[in-house]
Parts: sequence; structure tokens; C-alpha cells
Amino acid sequence: MTSTMRDVVDRQACAERDRADPLAQFRERFVVDDDVIYLDGNSLGRLPRDTPRRLAHLVGDEWGRGLIRSWTDAGWMDSPRRLGDKIARLIGACADEVLVTDTTSVALFKLGAAVMKARPERHVIVSEPANFPTDLYIAGGISELFDNVHLRLVERTHLAQALDEDVALLMLTHVDFRTGEMHDMRALSDAAHAVGALTLWDLSHSTGAVEVNLHAANADLATGCGYKYLNGGPGAPAFLFVKQNLHGELHNPIPGWLGHVSPFTFETEYRAAAGVRSWMSGSPPVMAIAALETAIDIFLEADTNALQEKARELTKMFIDLVDTRLEQFEVSVVSPRERELRGAQVSLRHPDGYPFVRALIDRGVIGDFRDPDLCRFGFAPIYTRFVDVWDAVQRMHELLLSGDHRRPEYARRGAIT
Amino acid sequence: MTSTMRDVVDRQACAERDRADPLAQFRERFVVDDDVIYLDGNSLGRLPRDTPRRLAHLVGDEWGRGLIRSWTDAGWMDSPRRLGDKIARLIGACADEVLVTDTTSVALFKLGAAVMKARPERHVIVSEPANFPTDLYIAGGISELFDNVHLRLVERTHLAQALDEDVALLMLTHVDFRTGEMHDMRALSDAAHAVGALTLWDLSHSTGAVEVNLHAANADLATGCGYKYLNGGPGAPAFLFVKQNLHGELHNPIPGWLGHVSPFTFETEYRAAAGVRSWMSGSPPVMAIAALETAIDIFLEADTNALQEKARELTKMFIDLVDTRLEQFEVSVVSPRERELRGAQVSLRHPDGYPFVRALIDRGVIGDFRDPDLCRFGFAPIYTRFVDVWDAVQRMHELLLSGDHRRPEYARRGAIT
Repeated sequence: MTSTMRDVVDRQACAERDRADPLAQFRERFVVDDDVIYLDGNSLGRLPRDTPRRLAHLVGDEWGRGLIRSWTDAGWMDSPRRLGDKIARLIGACADEVLVTDTTSVALFKLGAAVMKARPERHVIVSEPANFPTDLYIAGGISELFDNVHLRLVERTHLAQALDEDVALLMLTHVDFRTGEMHDMRALSDAAHAVGALTLWDLSHSTGAVEVNLHAANADLATGCGYKYLNGGPGAPAFLFVKQNLHGELHNPIPGWLGHVSPFTFETEYRAAAGVRSWMSGSPPVMAIAALETAIDIFLEADTNALQEKARELTKMFIDLVDTRLEQFEVSVVSPRERELRGAQVSLRHPDGYPFVRALIDRGVIGDFRDPDLCRFGFAPIYTRFVDVWDAVQRMHELLLSGDHRRPEYARRGAIT
Repeated sequence: MTSTMRDVVDRQACAERDRADPLAQFRERFVVDDDVIYLDGNSLGRLPRDTPRRLAHLVGDEWGRGLIRSWTDAGWMDSPRRLGDKIARLIGACADEVLVTDTTSVALFKLGAAVMKARPERHVIVSEPANFPTDLYIAGGISELFDNVHLRLVERTHLAQALDEDVALLMLTHVDFRTGEMHDMRALSDAAHAVGALTLWDLSHSTGAVEVNLHAANADLATGCGYKYLNGGPGAPAFLFVKQNLHGELHNPIPGWLGHVSPFTFETEYRAAAGVRSWMSGSPPVMAIAALETAIDIFLEADTNALQEKARELTKMFIDLVDTRLEQFEVSVVSPRERELRGAQVSLRHPDGYPFVRALIDRGVIGDFRDPDLCRFGFAPIYTRFVDVWDAVQRMHELLLSGDHRRPEYARRGAIT
């Protein structure tokens, strides 16, 4: 059990790294209970301290007193575009390329179906079997809607070779939800473009965790979820990105009145608004947008490169500590050890993975579990400390040493979302 | 200007009707500012008194402290079905036929596209040109997605005759958003079924305002918005209804992981859940669902027939007072005078409609305006009083007499949502 790591890293050294962390100040912008080590911000992010006040104002004053007038007076109507422009700054997009609306699932559908409609001479969507199930189900749903479209699933190492002239769309999740492994967005986008295909990136496990620069990566389309690393709250709306040069070619297949060039003339014929607003379908989820905007405003103060750097250091420290302190307990690291291939999460494998995670939650370390045997731990760089990493591994060590995770109460299966 | 009405109705008589109103108690369940007469609940309903507290608890405790655990511990995961079952009781549907999810636009798309996919031998969607624009745009979007589907628009008086064996779907809004005129849902559903077509009803201007009994009316599919008469808050999610006998035939074209029979095994292949849950796409908008549920809980205490009866009486009184007190000012009633054809709104026509509504808002009577010349006033029966009707007409009368609505500041166009 002795090792170099144990000799050089201890809790004291972690506390020192926290003191030197340029992002340390952001932790106090969130509601934090120090008894809990929260390593599930990759599934549901923490509550920003400002969010309850913002929502109370929106509900009590803007809705309760302003009533219908707040659609204009309180800026509700513009909120999907206004917040989209803010998110654009986090993901290397331009103004009028990002819109906040719907869920990630619906956004994936709208963007994917629009591509298949616009390119009827091509018949294939390429993805990988390890993609998040919703992404695969939506791609399957699109395939079924069109008579002559099918979904080609290819292992990640063979994606570039699987692209040919029949492919309309390469549809991938940037950071793998199981392992945290990251695709090379630029290389795959270039490979897609070389055969005339477009790319659609799901950024749900990227934004707020790793640096994303859609223009530098030549990405065409993207969407991402608001409730994971971005801390927008349970069921927060998604954002969608449509690169400017595609605004004329692709059309929203679910055209709603608020995407009309002139919604308040109530015309019988649809005429799409210019720019990204044409991707609006129904009325914006005003409360949820306000919660997400409060969280995004925090990110706009943080340096995205510093966030990525800290995520890499947090996950590296976790991997090192797992290697040195938990190896004897049959715990192995599944996530990439190469720092530039890794998102802000680390997945472990353990024969008793499910009861291990359940028992850990009872000991105040919240991670989650994904079938069949993955224990996932997310290290949201905006509020996670280096001492949290130390303390989490310490509690894991104590738990495994005690054998308490083998108690029958932890064996019964139930969802760990 | 003298008339029977003026002789028999005065403010005193209105106050007496309020005292006798069996629904009068419900007004105090909403945040009400007595300086404002709010006749736009058909566009954005009022704030229920309990909503701020419910949201503060959800955000502060369930999200802030419970974090990821609240998906199960606080019932977030089940909320779309749980609230769907509550709404089912308001619209004459059964348990497991209604789900709260997405926006009305997305729900219309999902239901409409599912029908066209399931009935490829039929090629026509029938609607009317006066339908709400989103409904028409969505129907148009569905038509464009399929190679051989088109939208047939028919004036309301000729709808039944326009149905033939090529029609897959009759897609209508139950209560017209401009005039408040109501379709005979049963007669049109039966006419559609006679040619083998299905019906999809938009209940956005019905639920909470008029009695809806989907099973009695032989309706097949429906959706409706949560933020109008239902008081769910700005951008509240929609509900969708799929009649039980269609659960096997129609399939959600935007299949998300939460509609999978076993979401947490993360399977590559989609297998739809049994029942209405298969219509889930993305993660539920938890905060917005909680706000809507707080409002729906109020309706579950009220008798839906009494709500309809009161809406008819409020609108009748408004029409009578407009007839007797505003006729000299070129104000005419556009909405049906037959009580059983009328929703809970009355639209007026006036040559200076737009400035009239703008000036009225400045005098504390909030209605809205729809191009080209409709002044809309909604009488949400759950919180509107008979004295509100009297006072509104009184202020209209004073305004028109003064001519203040002709002041240049009211002529400038801007959206009145």
C-alpha cells in the first residue's frame, strides 16, 4: 500500500492546492453543505446562491404583479436569444447562433431531422453504440420517420473510416457519459466535411467542464443540457447551436409561432425569422431560463481554460489516489489516463459497484452508478475542491476496508440517477 | 343609451352575484391586485398564492440540499405522469392517458407526426385557416417532413364535408383564439371517425375555462397549454393526451431515454415503455411542473361544470353590458352570442382597436389585441368576479367618452402579448 503518491500527497497538500486555485472563489457562489462531498455535478449541478432570489422575483413580481406585461417589460420574450448569446461565449460560438429552448432530446431531433430533410440524396446517420441512449433513440426516431434513412453505429476507433458519401450526419456526444472519454471534435468534423457530411455534437457532458470552441473545431450543429455542469436546475432547458452558414439551408421541422418572422401578425403561412430565432418552437420556459441564466452568469466570470485545467488536475489527483490507495480492493480506473482525452469525470470499475456507490452515498460521498459495473464520479471544476477529492478517496478507503458495502441493504437495486 | 340591461343590472347587482357565486372562494387562492382588472388570463393566468412557497421549497430544499437524490426522494421522476393523471380528471380522460411534457408545439408535432407515420396510406391533415398559427405551422412542418402529406385548410362551416378517405388527421383548436367560438368536438370526432380519420384537439383555450370531456366527445388525441386558464406560469409545459386504444398503434417520433421501458439500463435499442410514459422525450422540466401542479391542485377542488357555467354567465354579462353601454362608440361583439358556442373569452371589434386596448391597460383593464382589429377579453372563471365585468365596462365607457384612446402615444404599435 505504500507508494510514491501516498508519500507526496496528503490532505494538507490538497488544501494548499485549493488555496492556490484561481477558481476557488466560485465555490461560495453555490449552496454547499460541507458534510456532503458532491461528485454528481455531471448529472445534476449544484444550486447557485443567487437562483432562489432570482426565481422569487420572477414569480412574485414579474409574473404575480406584472402579469402579461412582463413578456415585454421583463424581457421574457427575448430570453431564449439573450441567454443563447451568453452561452455562445462559453462554447466558441457567435451571437445569433445559439438558442435556449426545449430539451436536449427535442433539440437533437430538430437539428438531425433538419439535416436529413435538407440532404435527401444522403441516407445515413453515423453514431457510435456507446453514445448516450437518448441520442441513439432520437437518431433511430429520425431514421424511422424518413423512408430511406438509416442509423449506422460504429465503434469510436472506426468512426472516421465509416464516413462515406452516403452519410449526411455524424452525430456524437463529445464527452462519453460512461467513461468521460472525449472525442477529437476537430478531427472528426474535418473527416465528416471531407465526405460532405455535417456534424451534430451533444455537449451535455462538456460545457462547463472542458473547453469547447465550436468554431475552432469546425462543428456545424450542437446541443447541450443545462442541468449538469451548467447548474441550471432539474430539467433545465437545453441550448442548440446552428452555425451561421447553415441558417439558409436548414429549417426547423417543428416551426412554432415564436420562430415566425412576425409572430404577432398571426399569419396563416409560416415565414421563418432570420437567424437562430427560427429554431423556436413553443413559448419559452421562462422560469427555467431565468434559473439557467443565473448560473450561466457565474460561468461568464470564470476563465473556461482555467476550468478545463482544474478539471484535469482534480481528475488526475483522483486517479492517482485511487491507484495508490484503492488498488488492493479491486477498484480499477476506466476513464482515460491521458489528460487531454478526459472530461471532468472519472469512472471506476468494481465487482460490487452498485452496493459500493449506495454505501458511499450513506457516507456522504455522492456519485452514481451506470450498468453494468461503472461507478461514476464527476468533478465539476467550478465548485469542487482538491480536499473533496482527498476526502472522497479517504471515505472510499474506509468503506472498502470495513466491508460495509456488502451489507444486504445495499444490494437491492433501485435507480441511482 | 337607455335599455333593459341598464335598468336591471348595476354594480350592486353584480356584487350580489359574486356573493352567491359558489366559486367565489377560489379568488383568494390567487395573488390579486384590486387596482387591476385582469382580463387576460386566457393568455397568461394569474399566480396562485401557494406557488412561490412551493417553488422556494423545490429549489432550496429539494434541489439545493437533496441534489440528485430528489429525482426519486422528491418524486421528480414521476411528476410528468403524476400531474398528467391529475389533469386527466379535468378533461374527462383516464389515468395513464395524459402526460405533462414539452410545449404545446412539440406535443402537436409528436402526436401529428405519429399519426401520419402510422397511416401511410392516407395523405391529408385537415384543419381550418383560423386555427392558431402554431398549429398550422406545425401541421405544415409535418407535411413537409413526409414526402406525400399535405395540409388541407377548410373554413369551419365546411369541415365535416371536407373529410374523406384520404384524411388521416383532423387537427383543430377546440376554442378559437380570436373569437372564442367553440367547435362541437363530439360531432367532428364522429365525422372524422366515419371516414377512418383520427382527431387531434388543441385545448389551450379550453381547459380551466369550459367543460372538456375527451372520452364523451370521442376524441383521440389532444394537447393543451399550462399557462393560460390553468395558471401554471410563463412558459409552463403542455400536456398531451393519447387515448388508451391508440397506445399500441401510435409511437412517439422523438423517443427519449425516459420513455424507454427501462431507462436506467441504458440500452442501445429503444423499447417503448407501456402506456403514456412512452411519449416522454427529454428530462421533465421539474420546476415548471411543480408550478403547474400547484395550480392544477386548485382546479381539482373546483367543479368543472360550475366553472363553465360561471364563464358563460360572466361572458354573457359582458356582452350585455357592451351591447347596452358601448354600442354608441362603434364597439361590436365578435364572439358567439349563443352561450353553448362560447369559450370564456369575448372579442370586440372597434375601428381604433389597438389604441383602445393600449389606453385601457393604462386605466387598469388588461386585455389584449389581435390583428387586424380584435380586442380580446378573457374571463377566467376561477378568479374573475362579476363586479370586474361591471368595472371593466365602466372604464371602457369612460375611456371612449373621453376620447383619450386617440392620443398619439397609443397609436404606436408594439406587441401586446
